Amino acid sequence: MSEREPTVAEIGEFGLIDRIRTICGGDTSPDLLLSIGDDTAVVRLDDHRAMVATCDIQVEDIHFQWNTITPYQLGRRSMAVNLSDIASMGATPLYALTSLAVPPSLPAAHFDKMFAGMNDEVRQFGALVVGGNLARSNERLVVDVFMWGMVDPAHMLTRTGAQAGDVVYVTGALGSSRAGLDVLMRYGPSCSDEYAEVVRAHLEPRPRVREGRTIAQSGLATTMIDVSDGLAADIGHICDSSQVGVEIDESQLPFDAVLFKIARNAERDLREYTLYGGEDYELLFTVRSTDANAMERLAQENGFALRGIGRVVADREGRTLIDPQGTRHALDPKGWDHFRVV
Amino acid sequence: MSEREPTVAEIGEFGLIDRIRTICGGDTSPDLLLSIGDDTAVVRLDDHRAMVATCDIQVEDIHFQWNTITPYQLGRRSMAVNLSDIASMGATPLYALTSLAVPPSLPAAHFDKMFAGMNDEVRQFGALVVGGNLARSNERLVVDVFMWGMVDPAHMLTRTGAQAGDVVYVTGALGSSRAGLDVLMRYGPSCSDEYAEVVRAHLEPRPRVREGRTIAQSGLATTMIDVSDGLAADIGHICDSSQVGVEIDESQLPFDAVLFKIARNAERDLREYTLYGGEDYELLFTVRSTDANAMERLAQENGFALRGIGRVVADREGRTLIDPQGTRHALDPKGWDHFRVV
Repeated sequence: MSEREPTVAEIGEFGLIDRIRTICGGDTSPDLLLSIGDDTAVVRLDDHRAMVATCDIQVEDIHFQWNTITPYQLGRRSMAVNLSDIASMGATPLYALTSLAVPPSLPAAHFDKMFAGMNDEVRQFGALVVGGNLARSNERLVVDVFMWGMVDPAHMLTRTGAQAGDVVYVTGALGSSRAGLDVLMRYGPSCSDEYAEVVRAHLEPRPRVREGRTIAQSGLATTMIDVSDGLAADIGHICDSSQVGVEIDESQLPFDAVLFKIARNAERDLREYTLYGGEDYELLFTVRSTDANAMERLAQENGFALRGIGRVVADREGRTLIDPQGTRHALDPKGWDHFRVV
Repeated sequence: MSEREPTVAEIGEFGLIDRIRTICGGDTSPDLLLSIGDDTAVVRLDDHRAMVATCDIQVEDIHFQWNTITPYQLGRRSMAVNLSDIASMGATPLYALTSLAVPPSLPAAHFDKMFAGMNDEVRQFGALVVGGNLARSNERLVVDVFMWGMVDPAHMLTRTGAQAGDVVYVTGALGSSRAGLDVLMRYGPSCSDEYAEVVRAHLEPRPRVREGRTIAQSGLATTMIDVSDGLAADIGHICDSSQVGVEIDESQLPFDAVLFKIARNAERDLREYTLYGGEDYELLFTVRSTDANAMERLAQENGFALRGIGRVVADREGRTLIDPQGTRHALDPKGWDHFRVV
């Protein structure tokens, strides 16, 4: 070969998804409401039901390390990340399949505790582990989960539908998970109590299943997504799909005060957590400004946190972060290194 | 710890499945028709529809090796093994999600060809790849597929329902896949033409989707399974679930004549292929003896192969292989090493 072929790393995740869409797209079914490139696939079953399906893989030494997570926590986490995808559509999770590649030397007690974690995590939302597959792996444990649930297509929320003027909300603190990971890397799992909450946010994320359903069924939201890639990237997904811009008000971002200390110790900018951290599994959604009061009342009545962090603007106005001094920055999804003052 | 804890290898696949059933079973939904321990999970959607869901993982250096399979073949194979599970229920495959852990160095062209194989494999049966997940792996490629389809619960076939007197049928040759693997290991992919068919059987298995649906919809079959673990193990699954015994007539087993030569060269007993080979992805099913003629006519009309290979007997009569000399052997699912004359 005269020229070296590009690798998947050079194409990047979103480039690869585009390639899959080109190869596997084409003629589809009229029942297929959402497909390649979204967080979940959605298939209409009848007038009032659509099936929402998703999967998420956890690979040892990539997504988790045994020196910082227990088997029980890994089980919970492997389900939580999928529950969050289901929650982001406003759907009700129902069933999960587990597909595992297991090194033969894994203690059976670890295996049991992992499944106990999986079962506890899904059962709190009325869902069930109903099957799967067991295979052998040479060295590293692979835990893949396939989960599906149901939603009324009339109430389903996607990334599409935000309009200029909508208020942007988030259901809880941002950046804790990434900060918790830094703490785990630095101090290990038996770290100081002051870090317990951010470590828990990383190891045992709490998917916003009930909140997602409440928000969707209210009919007040226009789009919704879960914060898995980080606020900047995930609001970017809404902007891409809805063809809108956004202004995020940095002074309104909710985060745990201990992040200041963790960021200083890790020699990071706080925004590496709050804007680019990812794996927060909070819900990020938009609401017409005329419905904002009703949404805030709904959250209060249902006892969940809500913070307005910005507003949707026209596509041509771009994506902006307004810092606490009022300075405007381009909100680049790629991370702090690419963060530019404009 | 005073005693060493057992590993997953020591517990074994079926022991692990029992543990999962204990941990995750308990209260379930009345809509859950099949769950942990079967080839697929089945959930009733309404009076005439049930969703059939399955998954199957392929790990590099465990389930495939790049020196014997092309990316396109791997894509086809990863879908075929799932299509076969759907086929074994008599269901129609509809949608697949792909969950991949990809080493960053994988050529993007390989990635494209793999998805082209996936797409070609599912589209021939009218199914679609509708999403999934991409993650990074350190070294080895992991290709996990989740697939679901629909079946009328009235026509669904499971491992339960065989009765003494039923005829045991199989839809095609046994042992080719395992023999093809031996050929690949010995000669590599550019082997002699005489082995082309068994190599193809290993690399590009043809799931019996249309046959499965035809058999199920006829109402003539009492149980069905696909041959993935090997004839001895898979007929054993039917016996376990139906609480019956079986007599397999070795002289009736269909297999490619080239297996004699491959077995001799590999210094194996032929039964290591025909009885214990696995990954044949033919359908194995039972039919009341009074319906056997009708089933054979149906196969002829629909142009698919069918071979009666034995009959179901009472549970207390056990599981027997009758060799071509008429000698009776215990049909042990664990393989030739455990094969005993009784």
